[in-house]
Amino acid sequence: MVPRYRPERLCRSRSGASDAPVMTTQRGIGELGLGTGKKARLNRILYHHGLRNGTAIFLPYDHGLEHGPRDFFANPAVSDPAYIIALAIEGGFNGIAVQIGLAEKFYWDFAGEVPLVLKLNGKTDIPSDADALSPLHATVADAVRLGADAVGYTLYVGSPAQEADFRQYRQVREDAQRLGMPLIVWAYPRGAAIEAKGGKDSFYAVDYAARTASELGADLVKVNFPDPEKRTAVRSEYDAEFSSQQAIDAVVRSANRTLLLVSGGERAGDDAMLEKAREAMEAGATGLIYGRNVWQREHDESLRFVGRLREILAKYSRTGPAVT
Amino acid sequence: MVPRYRPERLCRSRSGASDAPVMTTQRGIGELGLGTGKKARLNRILYHHGLRNGTAIFLPYDHGLEHGPRDFFANPAVSDPAYIIALAIEGGFNGIAVQIGLAEKFYWDFAGEVPLVLKLNGKTDIPSDADALSPLHATVADAVRLGADAVGYTLYVGSPAQEADFRQYRQVREDAQRLGMPLIVWAYPRGAAIEAKGGKDSFYAVDYAARTASELGADLVKVNFPDPEKRTAVRSEYDAEFSSQQAIDAVVRSANRTLLLVSGGERAGDDAMLEKAREAMEAGATGLIYGRNVWQREHDESLRFVGRLREILAKYSRTGPAVT
Amino acid sequence: MVPRYRPERLCRSRSGASDAPVMTTQRGIGELGLGTGKKARLNRILYHHGLRNGTAIFLPYDHGLEHGPRDFFANPAVSDPAYIIALAIEGGFNGIAVQIGLAEKFYWDFAGEVPLVLKLNGKTDIPSDADALSPLHATVADAVRLGADAVGYTLYVGSPAQEADFRQYRQVREDAQRLGMPLIVWAYPRGAAIEAKGGKDSFYAVDYAARTASELGADLVKVNFPDPEKRTAVRSEYDAEFSSQQAIDAVVRSANRTLLLVSGGERAGDDAMLEKAREAMEAGATGLIYGRNVWQREHDESLRFVGRLREILAKYSRTGPAVT
Amino acid sequence: MVPRYRPERLCRSRSGASDAPVMTTQRGIGELGLGTGKKARLNRILYHHGLRNGTAIFLPYDHGLEHGPRDFFANPAVSDPAYIIALAIEGGFNGIAVQIGLAEKFYWDFAGEVPLVLKLNGKTDIPSDADALSPLHATVADAVRLGADAVGYTLYVGSPAQEADFRQYRQVREDAQRLGMPLIVWAYPRGAAIEAKGGKDSFYAVDYAARTASELGADLVKVNFPDPEKRTAVRSEYDAEFSSQQAIDAVVRSANRTLLLVSGGERAGDDAMLEKAREAMEAGATGLIYGRNVWQREHDESLRFVGRLREILAKYSRTGPAVT
Amino acid sequence: MVPRYRPERLCRSRSGASDAPVMTTQRGIGELGLGTGKKARLNRILYHHGLRNGTAIFLPYDHGLEHGPRDFFANPAVSDPAYIIALAIEGGFNGIAVQIGLAEKFYWDFAGEVPLVLKLNGKTDIPSDADALSPLHATVADAVRLGADAVGYTLYVGSPAQEADFRQYRQVREDAQRLGMPLIVWAYPRGAAIEAKGGKDSFYAVDYAARTASELGADLVKVNFPDPEKRTAVRSEYDAEFSSQQAIDAVVRSANRTLLLVSGGERAGDDAMLEKAREAMEAGATGLIYGRNVWQREHDESLRFVGRLREILAKYSRTGPAVT
Repeated sequence: MVPRYRPERLCRSRSGASDAPVMTTQRGIGELGLGTGKKARLNRILYHHGLRNGTAIFLPYDHGLEHGPRDFFANPAVSDPAYIIALAIEGGFNGIAVQIGLAEKFYWDFAGEVPLVLKLNGKTDIPSDADALSPLHATVADAVRLGADAVGYTLYVGSPAQEADFRQYRQVREDAQRLGMPLIVWAYPRGAAIEAKGGKDSFYAVDYAARTASELGADLVKVNFPDPEKRTAVRSEYDAEFSSQQAIDAVVRSANRTLLLVSGGERAGDDAMLEKAREAMEAGATGLIYGRNVWQREHDESLRFVGRLREILAKYSRTGPAVT
Repeated sequence: MVPRYRPERLCRSRSGASDAPVMTTQRGIGELGLGTGKKARLNRILYHHGLRNGTAIFLPYDHGLEHGPRDFFANPAVSDPAYIIALAIEGGFNGIAVQIGLAEKFYWDFAGEVPLVLKLNGKTDIPSDADALSPLHATVADAVRLGADAVGYTLYVGSPAQEADFRQYRQVREDAQRLGMPLIVWAYPRGAAIEAKGGKDSFYAVDYAARTASELGADLVKVNFPDPEKRTAVRSEYDAEFSSQQAIDAVVRSANRTLLLVSGGERAGDDAMLEKAREAMEAGATGLIYGRNVWQREHDESLRFVGRLREILAKYSRTGPAVT
Repeated sequence: MVPRYRPERLCRSRSGASDAPVMTTQRGIGELGLGTGKKARLNRILYHHGLRNGTAIFLPYDHGLEHGPRDFFANPAVSDPAYIIALAIEGGFNGIAVQIGLAEKFYWDFAGEVPLVLKLNGKTDIPSDADALSPLHATVADAVRLGADAVGYTLYVGSPAQEADFRQYRQVREDAQRLGMPLIVWAYPRGAAIEAKGGKDSFYAVDYAARTASELGADLVKVNFPDPEKRTAVRSEYDAEFSSQQAIDAVVRSANRTLLLVSGGERAGDDAMLEKAREAMEAGATGLIYGRNVWQREHDESLRFVGRLREILAKYSRTGPAVT
Repeated sequence: MVPRYRPERLCRSRSGASDAPVMTTQRGIGELGLGTGKKARLNRILYHHGLRNGTAIFLPYDHGLEHGPRDFFANPAVSDPAYIIALAIEGGFNGIAVQIGLAEKFYWDFAGEVPLVLKLNGKTDIPSDADALSPLHATVADAVRLGADAVGYTLYVGSPAQEADFRQYRQVREDAQRLGMPLIVWAYPRGAAIEAKGGKDSFYAVDYAARTASELGADLVKVNFPDPEKRTAVRSEYDAEFSSQQAIDAVVRSANRTLLLVSGGERAGDDAMLEKAREAMEAGATGLIYGRNVWQREHDESLRFVGRLREILAKYSRTGPAVT
Repeated sequence: MVPRYRPERLCRSRSGASDAPVMTTQRGIGELGLGTGKKARLNRILYHHGLRNGTAIFLPYDHGLEHGPRDFFANPAVSDPAYIIALAIEGGFNGIAVQIGLAEKFYWDFAGEVPLVLKLNGKTDIPSDADALSPLHATVADAVRLGADAVGYTLYVGSPAQEADFRQYRQVREDAQRLGMPLIVWAYPRGAAIEAKGGKDSFYAVDYAARTASELGADLVKVNFPDPEKRTAVRSEYDAEFSSQQAIDAVVRSANRTLLLVSGGERAGDDAMLEKAREAMEAGATGLIYGRNVWQREHDESLRFVGRLREILAKYSRTGPAVT
């Protein structure tokens, strides 16, 4: 009998000089099981914006809600959503992710110049995070009305409130499926059980979060870069020596046909950030989603840092063959 | 490349003699990203009532529910909603904010003479405030039926019940968007976490509350005047020397295209109140929302105090250019 | 400027011989801001039944649910709803208030002879009352179907479950507005915070409860007679010497255009009951709602007591001028 | 004035030889305030099945869910729902009460031979019973679709979860009213407050439960036989000497136009069971609902016991005059 | 009278040589009370796939959600859903059970080659399992849209969250009935009360779980193999000597017309697994549902193990007579 399954080389099938573009064999957007509307919008994000090579870099800007205005004190200009959207256009981003209030009042001025990712849920960081759950503020229908090309949903994987979170998420997934809207899941491990098993950046937690998003139907998933050295009390399978590259390779594999975006988290050193970005792209990630690392700088400094990120993405064109 | 973003001078671009009207560069209501119905109603409030100069002063009267009749003991006449609505008309207010019961039974007599702000939620102060959440009593559709020009919603930012509050708020925001009804958010920091970080009037808390309303799509936001001296245990960014003017400037910036109203709170000394009002308008606020400070006086005394507030507002016409 | 507001003399404008009917200036039902259906039904209750003079006396009979059959042991005949409805007809009541089960099975026999007030919510007194909330058993649509002229809703003002209660109440208010059905709120202060501040019969608690019903859109409100001597730990405004008459005057003023009904509570001495009734009518109340005080007697004794109540109501015709 | 109310002799108006049929004056099904569909279906149950004399005996079979298969160990054959339904037909029962799963898969084979009572809610006895609430598994619409002649609902009167129970019950009552489906309430006192006041079989608890079902609109109510000797800490009215007959008389009176069914509970001695059945019928009950007492025996033994119950019911024809 | 009920010999009516196919008298799918759509789809699963003899073996693959990617570490290839679906086709399975995300993105490639069982609910194993409840991620309508032939629902029998679980399940049952979709219940005893009474694999727990699924309308039920030796604190009826065969016989009897599938649980020794499978089929089970025991091996080793399972199923054709 002819075997029904031929393994795809999902990642790292790199060859040639290290600076030459890498033709990965990651599946193209035509091979992800997407409906027409999702494919059309994702095509717009990945091939009509940014580097137009199937990679992506997104600019998230929901910190005014998630952390409060304090994130803007270092550079008061960034308090103005118009500044940020303009920066996304100047920097050649593939999308800007904001909450409904800012989308309603600011995106009109820039509509069509940079894809809108409407962030559907969010919360302040004031009350206790013990039962973290991020309530919905907008619907997929709002996103359609505003001309968005994707929606974002924060899922707190492992939170004691996970059950309510999953239920809330379900409505979003259904609406996104029905309306042909790509769904990006911010997959954040959270809660006491996560803290007790290596923490939210552990390889164990990030790997599980990526898979959860995939099992539950995300089209893209945003994760923090996994830290394989956070091994305290993790499941035994993760309590071994893994390189940083091995960890991100596994996370991409767990996400499978759900495209992976790596987030920057709190501002860190530039070189470390760039190395993480490179490893993620090498592993088969589709791109990056960097906020504070980008805009907590002076304007021109922000653009310079974005330029270095784009240099990395330029090496990882995701234009692989239709069928391998 | 021509920069895509030119910073707007949102506030304090004052010039000339200090008593001359200040032509601020705050955006006009045509530049706030509003739909047709919201713009029409907001135009009616800001330019067809009160000083008709783009500023506003509102008279809130939900104390019978929020505090009980005790607030009326100082002047029993104010127990009668008809007295209050008449006062709002005599004083040249831009709106009267009441609960559904009073709107149903009293507004007909005065319909069209002063804009109605239907307060959609509210609670008594009898049970514990620990998990403060203010339940809905009316819908945006009720407001439409009653000829209201705006709706009001109390959002307890930071309350442990924040998640439920945000969910309840979402329905209101969606209805207001759908029905073209301006949405005023009473953004009140509340709960143990707020108490532990400087309290509900701290610069930190008020600034975060204003931004939250903006991120979640409020058209106007009502906040208490921020007190930058309440710094105990606030986020480090707020633990510095700020003048009262700097604090309110920042709050207006955080609210951005969500118009800011400053509330009076409990009755305080008149001169202090007037100075706060002046600073708020200087910072770019759209106006004031004063209840007990106005009506916990004899009738003529109330009108005299309102007259002094109107003198301040008269100096801050919000008729800025269409595009700066 | 001509003052926009002329205070109405809501109550106690009595003149002439003390036994002569008092022409109060309380507003007629045409001046309460009621829609057509509510006005029609309230007109039927107040002017086509009972004394037909704008006052009312209601017979409540939900004790079988609220307390269980024990309330009927003193006179087993009253266990039969048919006995009670017949008594209401014989006694010339303006309405009989029962739960859905009894209305469905017993009102048909007497339909149209005495107005039906369908009590929409209720509970047993078996489990703890700490988080008192009275769940709905029927809808306003049920009331319409059964030919009722009003609906009743028990609101536990101040209960820790107040938020859920208010939400449940909202649906009733909306349905009553939509279907033109007068809404009578049983406004009962309840919960630990009430117990700690003077108790459920204190002037403070009753006054707040009456106002809450008014703010939330009740057409009539049923309260216990306020006891101004219960002052322990009440709000400072209530911690003073008030006569019984002053207290009920204030409660009527707080209810304003929401008509006030005074309940009898547990069976008490007849003369004390009659004096309370007289004071309430003097204050401007619309009427009485007495259950156990009426039917926990032998049949003829019940009718005799009702006769004495009617004598009082006869002195307080509510046929005041249309506009004062 | 001619008195509007003539007391009906609801029960115990027995005369003649003790073995002759008793013509009680209990109201016929035409006098219960029932709509057309309810009357038609109840007529089918009471006069077209069983003894066809207005009495009834039901066979409940939801023990596989409520207790698990352990109830079937004494006679494994009864594990098979087909065995039980056949037994109900052979024994001349007026109805078989089962959960949706068994109704869907087994009733087709016997459809029309014995009335189906679809039990709408139920639970396992595995988790704690402290907040007892029995969730819905099926709807009245399911019952209509399956050709049922009644639905059953378990109401835990007095449970701390009573509020949620009452809300859930309301939907059932409304659907039953709308679809013309007789509603049988399993009125079970339950919870710590019941345990503290005489327990679930006390006269106090059973009397209150029967009345609650009546107030809330049940057409029939199933109660345990009241035990007047369980008086510890009951309400004072019940803390007196009552005979077994007096207690069941009072319970029938509390239920009034809601027809009463007495359940058998755990298997007990036959003679005691039969005596209880006789007292209940004497009091005016409509019939019996016996499960384990019937089927926890060998097949022929079951039928013999049923025969003895039928002998009792035969003496209590419920064909009283239309109007007394 | 001719007895209405003739007992069916549900199981173990084996005769002839032990290796010859056993013609059990288990009812065919035409005798299960199924509607047209359910019968059509179940027919497809049982007679058009696998051995086409009325038995079934399913491949479940929701471990990426339930346990995380750790289950795939032993053989990284199985992280790829395409590998697993291909394996199900190669191994001649009757169905593959996956969550919505994998079904959406992977089943298209194999649509129609192996029946899809859409698993409707699921959860991670990160937070505490104390109140286990598995939230819905997809609907029966999703299953119809994706061409599935059955849906799967995890019901945690005995969990403290049982009430919410039962409510959630009800919607699934109703939708499955309405849309003609066979419903497979993963009946898992769970929670402190289960742990205290013999644990989740005890005969008591598994027997109760199977019956619960049957009472609540499951078409198929998946249970763990019962362990009659786990008797600590179980109900007295189960505290006796039962052989493994007697236990599974009883469980099949409790499930009755709900077809039984036995799961493999954690990977165990092959011979023990095969013996359990044989006993289950002997008892009258319809088939097996084995995940980790199948795919936590190298590819060819997996197929070899499946071959041994198929040998067993081949001996238990479920093509019994229409009426016995």
